[in-house]
Amino acid sequence: MPYTLSQIAASLGLLLEGDGTIEVVGLAEPASARADQLALAMKPEFAEALPQGAAQAAMLWQGADWRAMGLKAALMAPRPRFAMAGLSAMMDPGQGYGTGIHPTAVVDPSARIGADVSIGPMTVIAAGARIGAGSVIGPQCLIGWEAELGEGALLHSGVRIGARVRIGARFIAQPGAVVGADGFSFVTPEPSGVEKARATLGADGTDVTQSWARIHSLGGVEIGDDVELGANSCIDRGTVRATRIGDGCKFDNLVQIGHNVQIGKDCMICAQVGVAGSTRIGDGVVLGGQSGVSDNLVIGDRAILGGATVVLSNVPAGRVMLGYPAMKMDSHIESYKGLRRLPRLFRDVAELKKAVSNLMVKH
Amino acid sequence: MPYTLSQIAASLGLLLEGDGTIEVVGLAEPASARADQLALAMKPEFAEALPQGAAQAAMLWQGADWRAMGLKAALMAPRPRFAMAGLSAMMDPGQGYGTGIHPTAVVDPSARIGADVSIGPMTVIAAGARIGAGSVIGPQCLIGWEAELGEGALLHSGVRIGARVRIGARFIAQPGAVVGADGFSFVTPEPSGVEKARATLGADGTDVTQSWARIHSLGGVEIGDDVELGANSCIDRGTVRATRIGDGCKFDNLVQIGHNVQIGKDCMICAQVGVAGSTRIGDGVVLGGQSGVSDNLVIGDRAILGGATVVLSNVPAGRVMLGYPAMKMDSHIESYKGLRRLPRLFRDVAELKKAVSNLMVKH
Amino acid sequence: MPYTLSQIAASLGLLLEGDGTIEVVGLAEPASARADQLALAMKPEFAEALPQGAAQAAMLWQGADWRAMGLKAALMAPRPRFAMAGLSAMMDPGQGYGTGIHPTAVVDPSARIGADVSIGPMTVIAAGARIGAGSVIGPQCLIGWEAELGEGALLHSGVRIGARVRIGARFIAQPGAVVGADGFSFVTPEPSGVEKARATLGADGTDVTQSWARIHSLGGVEIGDDVELGANSCIDRGTVRATRIGDGCKFDNLVQIGHNVQIGKDCMICAQVGVAGSTRIGDGVVLGGQSGVSDNLVIGDRAILGGATVVLSNVPAGRVMLGYPAMKMDSHIESYKGLRRLPRLFRDVAELKKAVSNLMVKH
Repeated sequence: MPYTLSQIAASLGLLLEGDGTIEVVGLAEPASARADQLALAMKPEFAEALPQGAAQAAMLWQGADWRAMGLKAALMAPRPRFAMAGLSAMMDPGQGYGTGIHPTAVVDPSARIGADVSIGPMTVIAAGARIGAGSVIGPQCLIGWEAELGEGALLHSGVRIGARVRIGARFIAQPGAVVGADGFSFVTPEPSGVEKARATLGADGTDVTQSWARIHSLGGVEIGDDVELGANSCIDRGTVRATRIGDGCKFDNLVQIGHNVQIGKDCMICAQVGVAGSTRIGDGVVLGGQSGVSDNLVIGDRAILGGATVVLSNVPAGRVMLGYPAMKMDSHIESYKGLRRLPRLFRDVAELKKAVSNLMVKH
Repeated sequence: MPYTLSQIAASLGLLLEGDGTIEVVGLAEPASARADQLALAMKPEFAEALPQGAAQAAMLWQGADWRAMGLKAALMAPRPRFAMAGLSAMMDPGQGYGTGIHPTAVVDPSARIGADVSIGPMTVIAAGARIGAGSVIGPQCLIGWEAELGEGALLHSGVRIGARVRIGARFIAQPGAVVGADGFSFVTPEPSGVEKARATLGADGTDVTQSWARIHSLGGVEIGDDVELGANSCIDRGTVRATRIGDGCKFDNLVQIGHNVQIGKDCMICAQVGVAGSTRIGDGVVLGGQSGVSDNLVIGDRAILGGATVVLSNVPAGRVMLGYPAMKMDSHIESYKGLRRLPRLFRDVAELKKAVSNLMVKH
Repeated sequence: MPYTLSQIAASLGLLLEGDGTIEVVGLAEPASARADQLALAMKPEFAEALPQGAAQAAMLWQGADWRAMGLKAALMAPRPRFAMAGLSAMMDPGQGYGTGIHPTAVVDPSARIGADVSIGPMTVIAAGARIGAGSVIGPQCLIGWEAELGEGALLHSGVRIGARVRIGARFIAQPGAVVGADGFSFVTPEPSGVEKARATLGADGTDVTQSWARIHSLGGVEIGDDVELGANSCIDRGTVRATRIGDGCKFDNLVQIGHNVQIGKDCMICAQVGVAGSTRIGDGVVLGGQSGVSDNLVIGDRAILGGATVVLSNVPAGRVMLGYPAMKMDSHIESYKGLRRLPRLFRDVAELKKAVSNLMVKH
């Protein structure tokens, strides 16, 4: 769908310079932009490639000399990266899901479906489920027994929402995401090797193999507004109380959130992160890709874990952590600089020992 | 479904004190318990919150003074955590799957379906598959060609069981779990860079790029009784023989088990664990969240890997391991204490060098 | 389906010795081989178990004395492991998917389906999708709006291909694989704590929690020929340009490939690997299981990352890396040898300090 630059500027509050009647149908990188695309050149180094493409207009940084770049118009913003949010939303053609309830969908008569909801082929809506107005439920999804989805949800294909899960408004879930699988909670008749190893810091395992008895997950999952969940990610239900996710949290693909976990608002949880059972995470926390947080810990507000960081103890608010086991990022960089130079340190100490030994002989 | 405390005590072998006619419909944490819920206060610190809730009865530790807590009755057990297994099972309302075969399910006429089996909407049962009596197959599952499921299975939505996979009794699989995908097995016409790097411990890579030829996975997967598999977890089929999982193993979400792997009985494999091809794991082994085991290794009975531990060589029975590369847990703690103090050690050695150099000048 | 040894030898270019009329229906390990199976004994240590089985013929290394092993015939190859590719393909009975379009599949009339395509039950083919001749699309798959699949594709159950994704010939995808989920791209109104922490190497976090605005993914995914994708693996679409995967790449299960990533040809990406957004990977690269590559990096041709290696900076061509943070494999081995001996080094230095201090007193 084409927009004029004036429409875009007005809709997103951007600064427009030049010919606002130019129409664009999409976004492109400078070198490959067609005349009907808006080139994205938000830093001077990207603008250099503009002559290789055919763009008439570009999204630029504030103060850029667009005329010298051979453009007929430019959009500008104080923080162009933030402008990308609105721009990309306007230009997104989406997945082409249909409207209304597809004839192959199985919708239980007791489910309450809001106005203007789209339900895709092969999707199953169980008894007592509620789906908020304006939601789009893609193909092959399951909305479980008495589960509840707020307004304006967008579920891509194969998303599975378990029984009694409650989710707020504008939830987005990528294909294969699972909310409300059972927590991983088992118990042995006698204290297990893990319980012993934790108590003794590993000095003592066990010499008996016991069978694991399942503890059922009776709690649900409660998710706030404006949460997104990545492809094939999993949020488990709680044991007794609910697993809880605050407003505005964003989860990437293949993330695992264990039972009873509590996450504050506006957290960013990158791909393949794992958070073990009963851990509490504050507001605005960022967990880098492949990072892990052990069970029953507390991660303070706005803490940041770098990629693949593994946290085995509590993290205070605002702390930036890196490594396994996690250290403060600057300490980690120092320590690992040392680790690389360790073979040389051993040689130095060996020489010192020899020298000191010689000196001692002389006395 | 309400139960009297007497019914619960009799059914689970718990000690009952006080009014056994009190009925409860669920479990709750002490602070939020309603009068018709059994409060869980299995340690003194949890019992302190009882007055904030409305519970008439609680599950307590042995010897607890329930009258002083204002309760009318109490259930007690020598290991209350173990009692949770039975309690939670009694109180679990489940997912509300229906009975019988849903009209939208596609069941091949040659499949053999046991008595009292439930098959959900959009589920596909392929030719020659066998499903044991009393099983519940949720919506949108696939049971592949000549695959075999024992009695009392519970498959949640979207579980995929490949052709010729054989699974014992009481198997539970969470949404999106996959059993019997092809193993990841490829070969180059000439020895590859990986083969060379392993042979030379990394001193020598390769300067030629070769294409990978696929080795098909002809083996199946054989899973014992009482096994559970988490959401979106994967167990690959073997190359020639079957991948084998022993009785009583429990797998959390997003776990990867490679081709030809052999796992003993009663192992606990936590979320996001990876076990590479042809590795053999003993009985009662615990693999902590995000831990990894390289290919062709042997992990002894009752070994324990802490969270995110990466094992690149064999682990003897009973050993508790931590870190990457994995060390004995106590050595790991010592070594990483040293790593944190390493910058200071470098400074100390630099000072020593200066001091020794001065001393040597004087001689 | 039975083959004579002569047929196998001719078809795969193997050396045949002995009775070529012997028929086999499958492959087996030496100890469990039946008379109608070809035993695999490609190294002398495997051949020792032949007498325990009933094989009449075996696949052996070149020059093996098959008569002395009691066999009637043998197949041989200069690189027997490579011969396994052809052998296993001949013997694979497959998953038993049907032919033609299953009556429960929903195929949009505007989709273009090639000759001899099989589409399984409950599969959805969206508007404008194109599927190449000879492809097999398993049960419960989704081929999205205007997505394009080349000839000879094999999609197992529950594979989800998003809108506008373009895939070359002979693509194989295991159950639950997802191509074309949205990239994980969010932006805050003001620079976020992550942006600050990166700029200052962790010295400075943030004390404000901001909400994340979504950047939509307008780019597609472009995948070359002969690519395989493992179970529940995810390849995200690009933001503006496409995420690109070269010919011949093989991905194992539970892999995450972020938005805008570019991967060359013939790469092997093992299970649970994560590659973060906008990273470029060369040809013939091997990423070991659970390894991770941070965003916006460059990994040179034929680089190899050992299992669980975490790369936070560029890797030159041909380099073999190990560890977190990644080091050259041989340096890693040296450094971690030192780490294990670190507690002793601290003791040595403490003793040296005492000795030097004593020596200094004497002067």
